[in-house]
Amino acid sequence: MKEFAKRVKQDPVAILPIGALEGHSSHLPLSTDSIQPQYVAEELAKRHKNTIIMPLLPFGNCSSTRNLPGTISVTATTLEMYVSEVLCEMARHGMRKIVVLSGHAGRSHMAALRNAAEIMLERYFDARIMVLSDYDIAYDMMGEGDIPKSDGHAGTIETSRVWAIKPKLVDAKHLPKANDPVMPKYMVLAQPERYFESGVIGGNPRKASRGTGRKVNRFIVDQLLELMKNLEE
Amino acid sequence: MKEFAKRVKQDPVAILPIGALEGHSSHLPLSTDSIQPQYVAEELAKRHKNTIIMPLLPFGNCSSTRNLPGTISVTATTLEMYVSEVLCEMARHGMRKIVVLSGHAGRSHMAALRNAAEIMLERYFDARIMVLSDYDIAYDMMGEGDIPKSDGHAGTIETSRVWAIKPKLVDAKHLPKANDPVMPKYMVLAQPERYFESGVIGGNPRKASRGTGRKVNRFIVDQLLELMKNLEE
Amino acid sequence: MKEFAKRVKQDPVAILPIGALEGHSSHLPLSTDSIQPQYVAEELAKRHKNTIIMPLLPFGNCSSTRNLPGTISVTATTLEMYVSEVLCEMARHGMRKIVVLSGHAGRSHMAALRNAAEIMLERYFDARIMVLSDYDIAYDMMGEGDIPKSDGHAGTIETSRVWAIKPKLVDAKHLPKANDPVMPKYMVLAQPERYFESGVIGGNPRKASRGTGRKVNRFIVDQLLELMKNLEE
Amino acid sequence: MKEFAKRVKQDPVAILPIGALEGHSSHLPLSTDSIQPQYVAEELAKRHKNTIIMPLLPFGNCSSTRNLPGTISVTATTLEMYVSEVLCEMARHGMRKIVVLSGHAGRSHMAALRNAAEIMLERYFDARIMVLSDYDIAYDMMGEGDIPKSDGHAGTIETSRVWAIKPKLVDAKHLPKANDPVMPKYMVLAQPERYFESGVIGGNPRKASRGTGRKVNRFIVDQLLELMKNLEE
Amino acid sequence: MKEFAKRVKQDPVAILPIGALEGHSSHLPLSTDSIQPQYVAEELAKRHKNTIIMPLLPFGNCSSTRNLPGTISVTATTLEMYVSEVLCEMARHGMRKIVVLSGHAGRSHMAALRNAAEIMLERYFDARIMVLSDYDIAYDMMGEGDIPKSDGHAGTIETSRVWAIKPKLVDAKHLPKANDPVMPKYMVLAQPERYFESGVIGGNPRKASRGTGRKVNRFIVDQLLELMKNLEE
Amino acid sequence: MKEFAKRVKQDPVAILPIGALEGHSSHLPLSTDSIQPQYVAEELAKRHKNTIIMPLLPFGNCSSTRNLPGTISVTATTLEMYVSEVLCEMARHGMRKIVVLSGHAGRSHMAALRNAAEIMLERYFDARIMVLSDYDIAYDMMGEGDIPKSDGHAGTIETSRVWAIKPKLVDAKHLPKANDPVMPKYMVLAQPERYFESGVIGGNPRKASRGTGRKVNRFIVDQLLELMKNLEE
Repeated sequence: MKEFAKRVKQDPVAILPIGALEGHSSHLPLSTDSIQPQYVAEELAKRHKNTIIMPLLPFGNCSSTRNLPGTISVTATTLEMYVSEVLCEMARHGMRKIVVLSGHAGRSHMAALRNAAEIMLERYFDARIMVLSDYDIAYDMMGEGDIPKSDGHAGTIETSRVWAIKPKLVDAKHLPKANDPVMPKYMVLAQPERYFESGVIGGNPRKASRGTGRKVNRFIVDQLLELMKNLEE
Repeated sequence: MKEFAKRVKQDPVAILPIGALEGHSSHLPLSTDSIQPQYVAEELAKRHKNTIIMPLLPFGNCSSTRNLPGTISVTATTLEMYVSEVLCEMARHGMRKIVVLSGHAGRSHMAALRNAAEIMLERYFDARIMVLSDYDIAYDMMGEGDIPKSDGHAGTIETSRVWAIKPKLVDAKHLPKANDPVMPKYMVLAQPERYFESGVIGGNPRKASRGTGRKVNRFIVDQLLELMKNLEE
Repeated sequence: MKEFAKRVKQDPVAILPIGALEGHSSHLPLSTDSIQPQYVAEELAKRHKNTIIMPLLPFGNCSSTRNLPGTISVTATTLEMYVSEVLCEMARHGMRKIVVLSGHAGRSHMAALRNAAEIMLERYFDARIMVLSDYDIAYDMMGEGDIPKSDGHAGTIETSRVWAIKPKLVDAKHLPKANDPVMPKYMVLAQPERYFESGVIGGNPRKASRGTGRKVNRFIVDQLLELMKNLEE
Repeated sequence: MKEFAKRVKQDPVAILPIGALEGHSSHLPLSTDSIQPQYVAEELAKRHKNTIIMPLLPFGNCSSTRNLPGTISVTATTLEMYVSEVLCEMARHGMRKIVVLSGHAGRSHMAALRNAAEIMLERYFDARIMVLSDYDIAYDMMGEGDIPKSDGHAGTIETSRVWAIKPKLVDAKHLPKANDPVMPKYMVLAQPERYFESGVIGGNPRKASRGTGRKVNRFIVDQLLELMKNLEE
Repeated sequence: MKEFAKRVKQDPVAILPIGALEGHSSHLPLSTDSIQPQYVAEELAKRHKNTIIMPLLPFGNCSSTRNLPGTISVTATTLEMYVSEVLCEMARHGMRKIVVLSGHAGRSHMAALRNAAEIMLERYFDARIMVLSDYDIAYDMMGEGDIPKSDGHAGTIETSRVWAIKPKLVDAKHLPKANDPVMPKYMVLAQPERYFESGVIGGNPRKASRGTGRKVNRFIVDQLLELMKNLEE
Repeated sequence: MKEFAKRVKQDPVAILPIGALEGHSSHLPLSTDSIQPQYVAEELAKRHKNTIIMPLLPFGNCSSTRNLPGTISVTATTLEMYVSEVLCEMARHGMRKIVVLSGHAGRSHMAALRNAAEIMLERYFDARIMVLSDYDIAYDMMGEGDIPKSDGHAGTIETSRVWAIKPKLVDAKHLPKANDPVMPKYMVLAQPERYFESGVIGGNPRKASRGTGRKVNRFIVDQLLELMKNLEE
């Protein structure tokens, strides 16, 4: 408590990791989107000492994967409200440099997080806040090295990253084959999972490797350290 | 009323155009994002006879341009609730093929529209609905002909399109110069407009022409006619 | 954008027209309640130069006509929230004299609009705002000239007014006969339309004429110009 | 409890009286709008034996009198939600003929009560429900006997009625004089009470008498007994 | 109104009694939880002159008894919102010492009332507010005199208290026998009433007496007078 | 994903641990209320094989400790909504035996969790759900062995338990002294922390020991295994 009060006075960067519980095919754990931002946050804290890692929020909004076994999806509206209150509390206690780092990158999910940040900013004008998914960065590596030019949910990059972080949680012996479903563009569907029953959406898990995972994870941390300079203005 | 009842029985495509009132620099009208989807809807109806055009909703959620003079931004949450009720009413009256076509393409705005569609689908499982911005299609033309490889808000494409539709509403004599602001990536800002005071964000209005506008508008209508086949499943 | 900023500095009257999509028997268009306030707003702007017309909101709350073919009714609560946000945005941009002018005159609909105005006033104490339906004025003409002493939804006055404004949208050859349903007083009904299946509620469309419409429309504009002086205090 | 269960099986009329705590000048109690519907409900129950009187809800939505000393105004939205839940509970327990009888007659207040009834009807289609203020009936007596042709808040009728019901609660020695404020029509005001600081709005308390009160109260009960037949359909 | 304004200036204690309509077996009235706090408030006002009694709110949140005949339960969320608005209005009018006194003691119900008080305090920092059920005090008498060591809903204490206050409302000839259901601990149940169909939960009505009721009621008032000193800080 | 689908078919007990981030004096970590239910859930799963542990929700509602450094408190209303959605999702995927196990035991916090369970039960009638804090059980050990007869927040039991689970996170060298603040009963306070600035509320950390912690933790797990039989009905 006193420790916390002291650290806040040093004007740290506070990272709020946002995870999800979401079907990621059968070779990856349901908590795939929680494992990744948690790992990234910890690596960041090693290299940027003045950092506070907040506890990870484990349930987000999952639109297209909602009916895959194990996906827990809260509505975007409720997610926005919950996260906006957490961010306001963080600011109330004096945290003024905040990174909301989400492992899940769904569009409504990310919009809810950005809306939450805007609500916080209305009350705490002087706060600096960044909202992103680590996949905003990771997908910049598509086409590099062994990574295919297009990739997606539970594909090469995601499989590689989790493999590198938590090797025991990846069922490396049963990597599903590539799946690149032709979804009807712009349709909002009651049962989108009919297009990707394996749980792989637009990627090839069999091209994954731990080495690729380590490379991508390092790239994300490097990039984030650079991006975090924007909090210092 | 009877006319409406009769037309609904023919299982038409119903288009709900979503506009916005938003600062688009000083050479374009505030209603730029309303003019475009309204025009597209009318062109679609000419070529796909069994179409109903719903009245345009003129106010959306505008995040980054919120403080530009004239921008009216309702919260994403309220937009979602309002549009979800309109969509449920449409479905209640028997419309089962719906296109939500937005002129504005902000991410939270689009997420709100998709969320609204999902809420409707929970009650009317058998409806078919598509949610998109005409800019989802228009930006596919970047790099073609006179259109620069990158473009943006109030830039070449948008200026061209409005010029082609409503030439009198474009101040062709005072086209602002290109502006490609270096925004701090992923930051959610209290005053984003400090980076684009002219109202142009990442585009070059001076490369616009009516011809380009006509070409883009035609391309959008062609593409949409193709996409609308997904409603027929 | 600059133009808007300049005009707001001149302290204009801003008119927010509120429409509806609502069954008005089969001789009048569904957009009857949108056509009328839009026309009135434009006439007002001709005679009161320092006026800004905001875009019309095309969906309101329609209680008793909810089940007529084509009626889109959003809940009063959602309407209140949406309009209160639009009004707050208008005030945020400096508009301090506002007329909310609704074509639809349902009691819950009008209450929602007044509640929205009160919410705006809590934040912008110095704003002056007026909320009314043009039918609050129009019904003062009942009993004058050819207008029956009692009138109502889709009746003499409404038919006349739309006929005068958009003659092509009125099916003058099939004017329905008078209908004066004896509704059970004060009952809130699940199916009120059982009492007025033609869509005429308490009026006689066959007494309508374009001349009457022009007269009523002029009267409304004259009265409104007078009433708008209350904004100047 | 068993008694209640037995009575509900007899398909009674259930009356939900809605009151208010509201400034009614200084000669009438703040609970004026609660005393009246409570009295009417009890008189009704004497003459219509199969009646259940629910407890009175003592706080409503008071718009124009909000700033008079002692007025407690809950928002229309909250009132609607609270009353809709009470009505749903009544219907859940088997009450299928309901009268919502309000002493306060404010427009937003009444709209909230009607909206609440509509929400209940969506779930309990077979319920019959009536929503009114006893002033909807009382004002039909304007111009009769000693009652002026126009009357209003805390005026002749209201003073007479409370005087007849609870004579000790009326300060008969200090009846304020008539007040007929010229309010700016259709304006929604931050401080409406500036127009009626005495708390009398459009009426003359000095014309009140207990006899008039008794007459009006009887008239209301007679009329309501007649209107309640609509519940029997 | 003037009287109210004058009294508020004397900085009174304002008591807001909260009741409930709830099945209390068949020997006690549904309004049992309203009768008790109303009586206590009146007794308090006799002994603490500078007191304002607000009207009683007659419907609360009743979780476990929800399905007993006659129980009206509003959700905790709606109760919280309604009461928070009433409390804010009381504070707006200058009441700065408030006692929220509930006859019903359900945990979610009491939490809603405390949450409402917190919401009020955020706006009116200088208010002093106390939230309790008279059963928080009454149960301190378990084991004293004729009162069993354990007691509960519709048991010895409650029966005695209502008997002392409103003897005619107690069916003294048919007091149900003791019932001490073994509820499955911590379970949230869809049909909790299956464990206590008589409506007695953990108490013995047959040990009740008017004398015990008077003693308990007096004890509560004495204790409350003492507790109210905390409002004076 | 397939693994999850298979396990759900075996009708497991699903435990949803609810934590909090809350000031617990300076010898205990802010995550004290998360560490405890997480540990208990894991121990339960060792002894009851057919168990699924859901990810822990790390932020709850903290009323009295809200202003202690590091406490993140979301409103009870938002917590209720978020958790009710998570529970509905769990039930949607087929989990029918649920334990909501909270480390934090605040009354509004627990009420929100129970309300959330009730909301879930309205849709999934056949689910069996238990909501409790491990402190509901732990406090039964007050007075046993070295544990004082009264204890509280950050006191003997809590310090002992965390010490036993995560010894490195307890600052055993600087255990604060006992603090038993005399809080004004039933008052809802804007600044409750003025009564317990050390963060200890009603307990004695200096009586804590790892042995006591192990004993209490074992007791909780034993008791819970017994209680979980209620899910089997």
